[in-house]
Amino acid sequence: MNNDLLHQYKRIRLQSERICSPLGNEDYVVQPIVDVSPPKWHLGHTTWFFETFILKPFASDYREFDNQYNFVFNSYYETVGARVIRTDRGNLSRPSVSEVFRYRKYIDEQMEHFLSNTSIDEPLRGTIILGLHHEQQHQELLYTDIKYILGHNPLFPAYSVDHEFTKPATNNETPKVIPIPAGIYEIGFKGDGFCFDNECGCHKVYLDDYTITSTLASNREYLDFIHDGGYRDFRYWHAEGWDWVKTNKVNAPLYWHFIDGAWMYYTFKGLKHIDLNEPVCHVSFYEASAFASWKGKRLPTEAEWEIASPNFDWGQRWEWTGSAYLPYPGFKKAAGAIGEYNGKFMVNQMVLRGASVATPDGHSRNTYRNFFHAPHQWQFTGIRLAE
Amino acid sequence: MNNDLLHQYKRIRLQSERICSPLGNEDYVVQPIVDVSPPKWHLGHTTWFFETFILKPFASDYREFDNQYNFVFNSYYETVGARVIRTDRGNLSRPSVSEVFRYRKYIDEQMEHFLSNTSIDEPLRGTIILGLHHEQQHQELLYTDIKYILGHNPLFPAYSVDHEFTKPATNNETPKVIPIPAGIYEIGFKGDGFCFDNECGCHKVYLDDYTITSTLASNREYLDFIHDGGYRDFRYWHAEGWDWVKTNKVNAPLYWHFIDGAWMYYTFKGLKHIDLNEPVCHVSFYEASAFASWKGKRLPTEAEWEIASPNFDWGQRWEWTGSAYLPYPGFKKAAGAIGEYNGKFMVNQMVLRGASVATPDGHSRNTYRNFFHAPHQWQFTGIRLAE
Amino acid sequence: MNNDLLHQYKRIRLQSERICSPLGNEDYVVQPIVDVSPPKWHLGHTTWFFETFILKPFASDYREFDNQYNFVFNSYYETVGARVIRTDRGNLSRPSVSEVFRYRKYIDEQMEHFLSNTSIDEPLRGTIILGLHHEQQHQELLYTDIKYILGHNPLFPAYSVDHEFTKPATNNETPKVIPIPAGIYEIGFKGDGFCFDNECGCHKVYLDDYTITSTLASNREYLDFIHDGGYRDFRYWHAEGWDWVKTNKVNAPLYWHFIDGAWMYYTFKGLKHIDLNEPVCHVSFYEASAFASWKGKRLPTEAEWEIASPNFDWGQRWEWTGSAYLPYPGFKKAAGAIGEYNGKFMVNQMVLRGASVATPDGHSRNTYRNFFHAPHQWQFTGIRLAE
Amino acid sequence: MNNDLLHQYKRIRLQSERICSPLGNEDYVVQPIVDVSPPKWHLGHTTWFFETFILKPFASDYREFDNQYNFVFNSYYETVGARVIRTDRGNLSRPSVSEVFRYRKYIDEQMEHFLSNTSIDEPLRGTIILGLHHEQQHQELLYTDIKYILGHNPLFPAYSVDHEFTKPATNNETPKVIPIPAGIYEIGFKGDGFCFDNECGCHKVYLDDYTITSTLASNREYLDFIHDGGYRDFRYWHAEGWDWVKTNKVNAPLYWHFIDGAWMYYTFKGLKHIDLNEPVCHVSFYEASAFASWKGKRLPTEAEWEIASPNFDWGQRWEWTGSAYLPYPGFKKAAGAIGEYNGKFMVNQMVLRGASVATPDGHSRNTYRNFFHAPHQWQFTGIRLAE
Repeated sequence: MNNDLLHQYKRIRLQSERICSPLGNEDYVVQPIVDVSPPKWHLGHTTWFFETFILKPFASDYREFDNQYNFVFNSYYETVGARVIRTDRGNLSRPSVSEVFRYRKYIDEQMEHFLSNTSIDEPLRGTIILGLHHEQQHQELLYTDIKYILGHNPLFPAYSVDHEFTKPATNNETPKVIPIPAGIYEIGFKGDGFCFDNECGCHKVYLDDYTITSTLASNREYLDFIHDGGYRDFRYWHAEGWDWVKTNKVNAPLYWHFIDGAWMYYTFKGLKHIDLNEPVCHVSFYEASAFASWKGKRLPTEAEWEIASPNFDWGQRWEWTGSAYLPYPGFKKAAGAIGEYNGKFMVNQMVLRGASVATPDGHSRNTYRNFFHAPHQWQFTGIRLAE
Repeated sequence: MNNDLLHQYKRIRLQSERICSPLGNEDYVVQPIVDVSPPKWHLGHTTWFFETFILKPFASDYREFDNQYNFVFNSYYETVGARVIRTDRGNLSRPSVSEVFRYRKYIDEQMEHFLSNTSIDEPLRGTIILGLHHEQQHQELLYTDIKYILGHNPLFPAYSVDHEFTKPATNNETPKVIPIPAGIYEIGFKGDGFCFDNECGCHKVYLDDYTITSTLASNREYLDFIHDGGYRDFRYWHAEGWDWVKTNKVNAPLYWHFIDGAWMYYTFKGLKHIDLNEPVCHVSFYEASAFASWKGKRLPTEAEWEIASPNFDWGQRWEWTGSAYLPYPGFKKAAGAIGEYNGKFMVNQMVLRGASVATPDGHSRNTYRNFFHAPHQWQFTGIRLAE
Repeated sequence: MNNDLLHQYKRIRLQSERICSPLGNEDYVVQPIVDVSPPKWHLGHTTWFFETFILKPFASDYREFDNQYNFVFNSYYETVGARVIRTDRGNLSRPSVSEVFRYRKYIDEQMEHFLSNTSIDEPLRGTIILGLHHEQQHQELLYTDIKYILGHNPLFPAYSVDHEFTKPATNNETPKVIPIPAGIYEIGFKGDGFCFDNECGCHKVYLDDYTITSTLASNREYLDFIHDGGYRDFRYWHAEGWDWVKTNKVNAPLYWHFIDGAWMYYTFKGLKHIDLNEPVCHVSFYEASAFASWKGKRLPTEAEWEIASPNFDWGQRWEWTGSAYLPYPGFKKAAGAIGEYNGKFMVNQMVLRGASVATPDGHSRNTYRNFFHAPHQWQFTGIRLAE
Repeated sequence: MNNDLLHQYKRIRLQSERICSPLGNEDYVVQPIVDVSPPKWHLGHTTWFFETFILKPFASDYREFDNQYNFVFNSYYETVGARVIRTDRGNLSRPSVSEVFRYRKYIDEQMEHFLSNTSIDEPLRGTIILGLHHEQQHQELLYTDIKYILGHNPLFPAYSVDHEFTKPATNNETPKVIPIPAGIYEIGFKGDGFCFDNECGCHKVYLDDYTITSTLASNREYLDFIHDGGYRDFRYWHAEGWDWVKTNKVNAPLYWHFIDGAWMYYTFKGLKHIDLNEPVCHVSFYEASAFASWKGKRLPTEAEWEIASPNFDWGQRWEWTGSAYLPYPGFKKAAGAIGEYNGKFMVNQMVLRGASVATPDGHSRNTYRNFFHAPHQWQFTGIRLAE
């Protein structure tokens, strides 16, 4: 039964462990900033999803792996016994890495048994598929968080000296400006496959005439912005962005280091010279917006991006848009815990569109709505301009 | 010359001082939270606007009132001589209230002389008009900030025991649900009069079918929300809103106090019992949104509000919308300091539409885009629902 | 009856108001940092002491002035009605300055009536005397807090352009080094007059041979320390002191400003050039200790200071000692609220000995134990060296 | 050559690794609070001491292990290349645990070679001995930090289910009150062996008559304090202690948990019921002082403790004294980096005397001056009373 689903389950679950394979045990544990979770937490949390939403409610003979894992791998784990213990994910040396892998193995065996022997109805199938997409989201976070952990170590250790993403980041296309005529368009997900709830419902929007660039802003252009005093002129910045620049003494994208007269960049292979032809990466919304302002242009809205997207290559960088993350017309939260997935985050964040070199294969759609806070730099973020 | 402008100038400038007339000297000085400025700062800052943008550049014979007032009444005043002095507006006992009034008198005489004797071209006229609208914005802030200062004093002093706003707050209308058909609409300012830069340009939007209520949510309905556990059930709240509720132990709108078994409300006349028929006031975006969610409805977008607005009475409360504060298509910042007026705040704030009982006469338009951060309660904010 | 006490009461109470006489109304209100209280709070709080500890419990016919003043003028005023209002002293525009003066007048009349018509036993007399010394402590705080309020205003307003303290600050004495032989000495208060509880009990200490300087460190010497890189060399500083220097970018005593190539100093007369012969003032314990370390010397202990004090003039500056503020042998807290006066502060503070130009006449003793936290600069503090 | 020293070196260095032997790799990495360092940091830092102060300056043929370890294992490691990277010890996944052990092995071989082949003069010998005592201090910190790391994990993992300290903690002695007569006494280190610079110089003190208890306060007595409302009555507490109780909602010593109606205590063996006869452990200075105040007694001064110490057993708990950590008369910092060892911490900390069950054998003296900040609970601290 469910051969396709089983195959898909195995493939995706394995991929999470593959991403971690170059890590040392210690790399799984630390949490240098609140946004960056320890890799072992990602491995446990995605597993907990299947245990909590599939096995416990639906597998009749299921025996819980460890009844304390719920508050370790849930998002909010504040209480134990009769006393509150405040802790952070990065303070937890236990469960150990090998225990987390045992947990994965146990859940995978149970899931495979369940998938092979159970008749699965549509809603349940939907939840399993959601769990797999959830796992894929955490695969991208594994990349970004591992990069942060190693890239903020003063020894700058490589993740893997010969690491390459499947999708190349460098861009050899000749830049073009793509014009889109005004009119009523439809955006949002429609069709049969999987989408997150925030991509629904498909709805009409009116767009004015606009143009959008066929390529992402390159490191070369971004260096021009730096050299032209972009980080020193408040006129390009939102007021909050300017505060952010001054408070954090920001003068370049994340992972850029000016060493011995040259701009270096921490990559999964270690410190390298900046590649001028590569699309700029690891910029915040504030930086993307200031760069656009310096260029005399602007960021596209998410509707503009989606409508124009068939006309350009995308998938190298998550592209900051000028749209705030808000519900689409007709958006409804699902009932129960699954309903907390997206809706409650729809305030004070900006939408990013596209995908990045770190996005798992098969996890991209041009209706996908990613979202982060304006100051965040640690994702593989980039800039496309509109006018 | 410029008789109309002169008349308008005198009327508006006088109104700021009228608002302050019930205050004691000490009330002009304090700044209980960063968002609330001391009344004397408002009086000085609006005056500084005319000195800086009209008199200094355009009145040939103008002699500056005091060369140190620039960093006292500008938004950012950090440096003096060769040493930085960090201070906050609420730490400045000088200039004294009477000195600020002398400053106003001096500038008013100079402005009246200037307006009476100078030929004023269109751009300059525009800047003067902007200064007057700026003063009117600060008139509403004078009301909200005075309310905060007195309403957070443990003695709960009245502003004036017989104070009444011109516009009554209570609502006797029978509630209706207004349906609006789907279609392309135009929003944004068009016409001849004054508008702020953020209301331009007028542009097309596509709206789906929606309904909007003809009345604001009342204290009665809001009490139902409280009694039904609205502040204790996370499902109604954005994740950030829920954090805000817990961190600040919020359990009611600002100025509500549960005393001896009854809900009291601080008003300009002192502490009063809640009037159940009045539209709820002093709620944050988080509260407005949670209330809407509890009702099974939502907040209107700003476009929906604007298109429907001819069909209902508005002007009692600034109405939170579900729209983030972002630039309209084609929005351009003005050059120079005036260009900082609005654009740089277009991130992480929500739009409010309408006007309130504290909004000066002649300062309302249904294209007006007010904006505050999601947790802010100290403005005269209220709730209208859509579906 | 009680003529002496009555006379003393009137004289001391009047002096608090005299100190405030040059102030504008607005100067009474602000609280620029948590340590600096608004002058009107000092005036109310010292009055509240007499109302709370004398009139309410002992004056049979006493009618409370205002039953809400208890939480306004007590040290901890957090609750009103059924709801907690968090506020700070500097956010309270009411009671107004004139109301506080009416409060003082009312209490003074009641106290004078009480003193004139009541037979007062020894314990009660002790509490009244304590109230007067308490008022004198706040007189010095009025000076230091007014200096902070005006001296941190970017306009640098003078308190009074011809202000002089009774005691001159400048020192014309030839410096000497005073040797004190080892032996058992007695320190602490003994005798008949008033002392605070922390000066008891008188007890024996053993001191080794030591020397102490007859004069305070001058601005000239302190400038040498600055020019010699004193604020840039961590070796002179406690670890916490060095953190304090770096975090706060401290490079001179409080109120020093380097303007147009010269060191200026804010005084009650306004900004003046540094007087090189004056004893340095407004230094923290960290600075006093680093200066001593740079000189190859140390600060005296409080016992060394007290034993040597008959051999030198003191009273210009509160002199930082190397002693932590701890209970003397045999120290007992008094019962009741008065017992909170001193004992509960005996941790993490340093002892200062002597008195300053701002200390009221008749309020000095060589057994007096003043105490502040190590980073505090806003008192009239200075440095005497030992070896 | 130097056989004794070599033997001692090997024995002490081995002991640090023995303490860590029950740990999993992940336990070496985390830093749950700033005071608690990751075990691998302790292992590296103590090794760095020998590399930096012995091998680099004195071993002519020495080749540095890794030139980046200096900023990893020094106390302050802020810079790399041309850019500052801010990080905390607990964010460093590299060097890995096995690399740190390789570092230890390398340094140990080099040190053993050095000690076996070099003639060592007195000052150098002193530095080596200091390094060994430094290592022993970190051995106690390894115990306290490991306890914190495991004891704050919601799984409450045991360090080792059959762990016992050499010194038993339980006390079977009948309590006595020991009287000490007034007089001049001598305190501070004298003699030939090792001592830290803060124990010098030996000096006279005068002590009044006092008594001191022969036993430490027990869990039974401390529970009486809790049951009698000790944590709810401000009168027992310093003002700062009371703030600490309220802010942190403290209601018991560290590691105490009230679970299902019983007080449990996290130990190296896991969660256990409180042993009423054991001396109370993991209390702050604030708690020790409040407990003493509730008993109508006080903490001894460090001089009283030292003089009385031959009359009672000590070594189970570090005993809070009523003395602030200040220099002894005649104290001089050593020149160079070694001079930073103790002196710069002599402000705002309290002295603890004795030793604890976690103190290494041979590392105790009755002149030893340990010191921590008043709120610290994570050391093996206890309470002895005086009067």
